[in-house]
Amino acid sequence: MSNHELPRTEETRVKRLPEKQVFDRAALNALLDDAIVGHVAIVRDGKPLVLPVGIGRDGDTLLIHGSTGSGLFREIADGRPLTIAVTLLEGLVYARSAFESSMHYRSAVIQGSATLVEGEDKLTALGILTNHMMPGRWEEVRDTTKKELAATMVLRVPLDVVSVKISDKPVDEFEDDGDDRAIWAGILPLRTVAGAPIPSAMTPEGTPVSPSVIAQTIKLA
Amino acid sequence: MSNHELPRTEETRVKRLPEKQVFDRAALNALLDDAIVGHVAIVRDGKPLVLPVGIGRDGDTLLIHGSTGSGLFREIADGRPLTIAVTLLEGLVYARSAFESSMHYRSAVIQGSATLVEGEDKLTALGILTNHMMPGRWEEVRDTTKKELAATMVLRVPLDVVSVKISDKPVDEFEDDGDDRAIWAGILPLRTVAGAPIPSAMTPEGTPVSPSVIAQTIKLA
Repeated sequence: MSNHELPRTEETRVKRLPEKQVFDRAALNALLDDAIVGHVAIVRDGKPLVLPVGIGRDGDTLLIHGSTGSGLFREIADGRPLTIAVTLLEGLVYARSAFESSMHYRSAVIQGSATLVEGEDKLTALGILTNHMMPGRWEEVRDTTKKELAATMVLRVPLDVVSVKISDKPVDEFEDDGDDRAIWAGILPLRTVAGAPIPSAMTPEGTPVSPSVIAQTIKLA
Repeated sequence: MSNHELPRTEETRVKRLPEKQVFDRAALNALLDDAIVGHVAIVRDGKPLVLPVGIGRDGDTLLIHGSTGSGLFREIADGRPLTIAVTLLEGLVYARSAFESSMHYRSAVIQGSATLVEGEDKLTALGILTNHMMPGRWEEVRDTTKKELAATMVLRVPLDVVSVKISDKPVDEFEDDGDDRAIWAGILPLRTVAGAPIPSAMTPEGTPVSPSVIAQTIKLA
């Protein structure tokens, strides 16, 4: 069973704008379920490396997957320390000054290390990852072959050391922000939406769009 | 003057899916101009740290800014190696197999280190950063105070060591992907759009939305 509260330790303490930190695990889960991409950072030869990765969530763990041919994934799989940031930009804050202008966002910073997912768990994890990106697609497509499975690396990162920040407050504006109240201030909400699906070359004309395409379109709307 | 070609060195060589790498500096510029957020990674106490930051572009350099009270920014400002990833997710690739399912994206990975922007350049850089996020807002808002300027750190990272990847190809699908052509395969395009602007508490009723709000809405549309 999941702890409802995220940990409050020195490692997870948000130093900058701590009033935006939240400790509700449900908020973390909602963010991870809404996001499709995260950014994973490792140290390679003493230097920082950061790359985008597709994510999925399995209970209180984060799943990522990549090619067994990926240098990054082989390095991550060796158990070295990693940090994954998952960020959703959700609005622009038009204040009365450049200084107070900012963004609405939700972000999680996950620290830890990864372990390989193998055996029967690997297929289950790939199903979770596929359905995270395209809800229900795993059940629509043909079975994954042994060769494909062997070419894919699946990694699991526990969601133990996690900081979550939510910026969703009204504009900071003050009586002394100049006399000109005529300037518009406020929030411009941003969201990601799906456009019209574009069928592939091998899709026969008239083939109905898959339920997983509709499900993702609805999830984003 | 800018070099039109991005560097082709071992440092910038994309190892994974190298066919997606592009060397056109215009493609880098377009990505950076379309993106609002990047993810900056540094090494702290031997461990990787990655956090989202607002970005701007000034010619062949990337600008980022934060509070002088931010530990991350003070560390970045000491000139240590950093990597910044800028990623835009632009579509989901619904293939006929989970294995070939993927994403359309543009991504840049920038390696280097940052230098402080100071003096008169600092105000100019803040104008670029503000107008990057909200086109024209710098000219709409009141002047930045000396106190605000002192509380803000602006950093510049040269766009010298950069890898750009663009994933925008049709679905990989094959004759032996099972006999069931009835399944829909294709691309679900994704994009970020602006919703209806929400006026702040101090904005008098009937105040027209600022041109910078309209400009950002149009830029995203």
